[in-house]
Amino acid sequence: MKFFSDNAAAVHPRVWEAMHAADTPDSGYDGDAWSRALDDAFSDLFGTECTALWVATGTAANCLALAAMVPPHGGVVCHREAHIEMDEGGAPGFYTHGAKLMLAEGEGAKLSPDAIRAVIDPIRDDVHQVQPHAISITQATEYGRVYTPSQVAEIGSLAQGRALGLHMDGARFANAVAHLGCHPAELTAQAGVDVLSFGCVKNGGMNAEALVFFDSELADVVRYRRKRAGHLQSKGRYLAAQVLAMIEGDLWLENARAANAAAQEIASACGSRVFHPVEANEIFMVLSPAEQASLRQQGFDFYDWTAPAGTPGAARLVAAWNSDPAHVAALSRAIAAL
Amino acid sequence: MKFFSDNAAAVHPRVWEAMHAADTPDSGYDGDAWSRALDDAFSDLFGTECTALWVATGTAANCLALAAMVPPHGGVVCHREAHIEMDEGGAPGFYTHGAKLMLAEGEGAKLSPDAIRAVIDPIRDDVHQVQPHAISITQATEYGRVYTPSQVAEIGSLAQGRALGLHMDGARFANAVAHLGCHPAELTAQAGVDVLSFGCVKNGGMNAEALVFFDSELADVVRYRRKRAGHLQSKGRYLAAQVLAMIEGDLWLENARAANAAAQEIASACGSRVFHPVEANEIFMVLSPAEQASLRQQGFDFYDWTAPAGTPGAARLVAAWNSDPAHVAALSRAIAAL
Amino acid sequence: MKFFSDNAAAVHPRVWEAMHAADTPDSGYDGDAWSRALDDAFSDLFGTECTALWVATGTAANCLALAAMVPPHGGVVCHREAHIEMDEGGAPGFYTHGAKLMLAEGEGAKLSPDAIRAVIDPIRDDVHQVQPHAISITQATEYGRVYTPSQVAEIGSLAQGRALGLHMDGARFANAVAHLGCHPAELTAQAGVDVLSFGCVKNGGMNAEALVFFDSELADVVRYRRKRAGHLQSKGRYLAAQVLAMIEGDLWLENARAANAAAQEIASACGSRVFHPVEANEIFMVLSPAEQASLRQQGFDFYDWTAPAGTPGAARLVAAWNSDPAHVAALSRAIAAL
Amino acid sequence: MKFFSDNAAAVHPRVWEAMHAADTPDSGYDGDAWSRALDDAFSDLFGTECTALWVATGTAANCLALAAMVPPHGGVVCHREAHIEMDEGGAPGFYTHGAKLMLAEGEGAKLSPDAIRAVIDPIRDDVHQVQPHAISITQATEYGRVYTPSQVAEIGSLAQGRALGLHMDGARFANAVAHLGCHPAELTAQAGVDVLSFGCVKNGGMNAEALVFFDSELADVVRYRRKRAGHLQSKGRYLAAQVLAMIEGDLWLENARAANAAAQEIASACGSRVFHPVEANEIFMVLSPAEQASLRQQGFDFYDWTAPAGTPGAARLVAAWNSDPAHVAALSRAIAAL
Repeated sequence: MKFFSDNAAAVHPRVWEAMHAADTPDSGYDGDAWSRALDDAFSDLFGTECTALWVATGTAANCLALAAMVPPHGGVVCHREAHIEMDEGGAPGFYTHGAKLMLAEGEGAKLSPDAIRAVIDPIRDDVHQVQPHAISITQATEYGRVYTPSQVAEIGSLAQGRALGLHMDGARFANAVAHLGCHPAELTAQAGVDVLSFGCVKNGGMNAEALVFFDSELADVVRYRRKRAGHLQSKGRYLAAQVLAMIEGDLWLENARAANAAAQEIASACGSRVFHPVEANEIFMVLSPAEQASLRQQGFDFYDWTAPAGTPGAARLVAAWNSDPAHVAALSRAIAAL
Repeated sequence: MKFFSDNAAAVHPRVWEAMHAADTPDSGYDGDAWSRALDDAFSDLFGTECTALWVATGTAANCLALAAMVPPHGGVVCHREAHIEMDEGGAPGFYTHGAKLMLAEGEGAKLSPDAIRAVIDPIRDDVHQVQPHAISITQATEYGRVYTPSQVAEIGSLAQGRALGLHMDGARFANAVAHLGCHPAELTAQAGVDVLSFGCVKNGGMNAEALVFFDSELADVVRYRRKRAGHLQSKGRYLAAQVLAMIEGDLWLENARAANAAAQEIASACGSRVFHPVEANEIFMVLSPAEQASLRQQGFDFYDWTAPAGTPGAARLVAAWNSDPAHVAALSRAIAAL
Repeated sequence: MKFFSDNAAAVHPRVWEAMHAADTPDSGYDGDAWSRALDDAFSDLFGTECTALWVATGTAANCLALAAMVPPHGGVVCHREAHIEMDEGGAPGFYTHGAKLMLAEGEGAKLSPDAIRAVIDPIRDDVHQVQPHAISITQATEYGRVYTPSQVAEIGSLAQGRALGLHMDGARFANAVAHLGCHPAELTAQAGVDVLSFGCVKNGGMNAEALVFFDSELADVVRYRRKRAGHLQSKGRYLAAQVLAMIEGDLWLENARAANAAAQEIASACGSRVFHPVEANEIFMVLSPAEQASLRQQGFDFYDWTAPAGTPGAARLVAAWNSDPAHVAALSRAIAAL
Repeated sequence: MKFFSDNAAAVHPRVWEAMHAADTPDSGYDGDAWSRALDDAFSDLFGTECTALWVATGTAANCLALAAMVPPHGGVVCHREAHIEMDEGGAPGFYTHGAKLMLAEGEGAKLSPDAIRAVIDPIRDDVHQVQPHAISITQATEYGRVYTPSQVAEIGSLAQGRALGLHMDGARFANAVAHLGCHPAELTAQAGVDVLSFGCVKNGGMNAEALVFFDSELADVVRYRRKRAGHLQSKGRYLAAQVLAMIEGDLWLENARAANAAAQEIASACGSRVFHPVEANEIFMVLSPAEQASLRQQGFDFYDWTAPAGTPGAARLVAAWNSDPAHVAALSRAIAAL
């Protein structure tokens, strides 16, 4: 009963189907019918013209987006615990050719205009200091927290006022939208987001994410950079098919809702153990070493986590699109019984 | 009836099967059972201990290999028409952080010790000139030409003598081995090759190549670089499964033999039109514009090619692992009838 | 009466003399007699074999050193307020090809083994996180604080134990040695420092610093990197001559002592206003806006500084090798009279 | 009697004077009066508004210029024997973050529109091939050949038509202008050049070149990049003073005329031995090994050079701004007597 992460779950049957349907020769790279359908599909989804490119991983999606907005001598404001800072093996430095991540604070890995200003306002406008060129936020955050449309819009407004690009790492964008019940455009195009990494892999996909550009000039550069990064697959139709399957019939929301619901069920059992509000599919809970051992003995797998001050220990549990209801119920019971 | 390229062909059924068999949760990234089986599988295949990593594209495989052998201030000798020089969108410059491709001559895109020496011998050993650190050869070459084991070994010997790394771009390595009928180690480990990009995508895979390291220290660096390049997929087992399927039961050779045989059949029909000996699955033939139009009218698709001096036009045709025998026969007849 | 910085002061007469003495044709780049004398001169100075290269700026010196010790996918631990982090315009990212600066805490911009461990110990040893490869400390620090030989040695010991390189940014190394009265080797070769940026420009030079390698293999790489960075001047003898003049007859110490003494004189006048112990040639003092205005009205120039919590304002004053004793006395009186 | 190169000659007395005149404290970096005077001085010289920055070396000047015009995924057309390709230790790859040098042919290292088109026309406009973004020409060329104003303008016109930037490496720009007797703007601003590396070091300077931007937006980026490259010297006034001295009273032309005249005198003695027309201050001549030995025995120093086909050997001789007339005469006599 694995609650490690959603990023190693199985692939959704409809994604498999779509991949098989693409198993016929077509043009190579992104010249095939599936890849060519992405712009329209995402323009429909977001209700505004946009350009969409498939990419195999979230790291590549994020970093291609950043590199399109930030020159090598510039910087990107992000949260101190953002995935791009903590868990991408230095990929932003590689893709941007050495631009600087400028680390801001914020509860639950959420940025706010104030937190961003606290980073950028002290920067002297001279050549001795790296100047910010973009902001990157994660939706839902690395702690499963969700920005409301107005929270994103406030950051978007700040970005625009300072001539900064705005990137959204949406590895769990679906979970955020499912949680909020809003239109996806409210969190992106309408809120000033320039580029969205639209996650699929954690949500039932195999190995395709979408980079969605609300500023199509950025996409023009990224086409070259994607190839240059070795990310232009020759049989791109198998990636495009995955992405299309995810948005067809709102499978992305269906899957995210399932994961979120499972997380809510577990969170209910956790009660006050939870130390980040559960707004997506991740639960961060206080759990002593003995309790961890007990749960593991009962067959539940999850990651240890850094314990909040004054607590004996902590764990992270993640529900996936296909978390078995029986496992979820069992886990909930086991936690309640601790 | 498409003879454009092998790189957009369908995926082999046994590769699909293997991917489906991997559709069960396991550790993320390359911690799963399939990924962990790669080293042994390739060590068996090559009869020598080696380390193997999956990568989604040949470009990424090639460039990760080069970056492991060449410092940013160094250079790589390759053929003027090597894929890394002509068709990777500058990826070597990206991955190596600006190292230089040093272009050598050679018929059929094949390098020889003499051609390599002609490039490196004039380089002054001072800091004003970029110093070579590696050689990269393509097997089979971009013109479907094949290095014999002794030809590789001669280059390997030169590389060793000059303290240069040796990389083999094996996007069509299977076709070369199938053509030669030799043991794969004769072309690699025994011939001084340090890293091989072992191609699968053109040979029935979907989106997984293998980087095979005969020098495992190089692999240690590449593990970090692969992540840093956004190429460490979280559901890596689907890539590992593809690669394992390709080498299980020698599917790689079976597929390559089929493609080579189809190419031979077409080549026979071409007679003296062929201007590069057909040793793999590619045919380069003289074909006038009128003849091109005629073939296309009959339903055959292929790429125009640069015509050799004194000829009216040329075309490239590529046979794939699954080229339909009926199409191959029809094409052969159509060519013979020109 | 300028107390802005030591980095724009005039050039010492003996440096001028040495430059003029080099105004005769010799081999270009670093093949001249002056450049070739550097290794011996520094080996004598440090009492151990070392290799020394001239570089025009401290930023280039620091970053060439880091790039020699840290691969693009690695990281460097430095203080949050280190010059390489705050004031080099992202040069470390450029030279290292995107390696990460890992920011540690410490009073007065001084690192300690504990502070370094607090940064590196939480780093998971996996490819998702950037791994540290070196430590960089500044001697004297950006706040004019000095590491004792044993403090450096403790860091050197930690570095060695973790297989990390150790770089010392010695833009004001002379001031530190003058303050401590120790042998320069006690702070470097004997304490585990691999490379020292030996500053001259702030100390009476014009535009030459020395990179001193106690590990000569690092120097071999830097020779190539220096050229590749456009820092190999063709008339290098004018730089070498500056550096040689600085160490001949211990001019470097003589100048540093003068600057330190001037700073001490001013500091005495400041009394409890000083908020960083004055150990080199910089004074950080509490100074209200009105007091700042008053001093400026009397003809004294200096930089505003960030005020410590609970104070009305602050200023940074820097004494140079040639600070006019009359100006220093006048400033001291003016401060005392505030 | 050294005829190795102009790049290691002594510094002109008026340059020394200017440097000494700058030996007074002023603002650091490029905030001083000398540095701030550069824009006006060069605007006067070229008769058009331009922006000028000092840089210590020609390599840095060239590569900063290229990096401002070419994205990392782009390319620069230059001659196969251009200094940036042959003798800058890979600096273009460093500064541009891996952009590609696209090598064109041309007699005497001169490019022509046809030669440029031969390189760029075959490039497919797709992401698999690196796209050109700029052209770089050297004036005078690496073989001492000079582009006329109309030759530059033709290249400028091509550049404009293809939306390519145009950079001129003017390490010996003064020699070219002196040879042609034209206005410097005819070779630059009026001919479509966007950035000029205006050489001083080979022409009597110590360690300052000027980057002259006829497109000031490029300069805005380069200011950041110069700092990021460690090329923003804190005592920049000593560099600015050199550059100003060079253009004051047309010292740059005076020096170049002297060097050119010396070269002409030697060339006359060489007669048909010369294999590149002598248009600047370099002489490339056929010289057998025995003749080389003879000249060297008589005290003349120079570099061997690659012999043209069918000749027994060759040498390169370079006259400098201060080549001693007696030495020049002696060399001419010695050559005539061979």
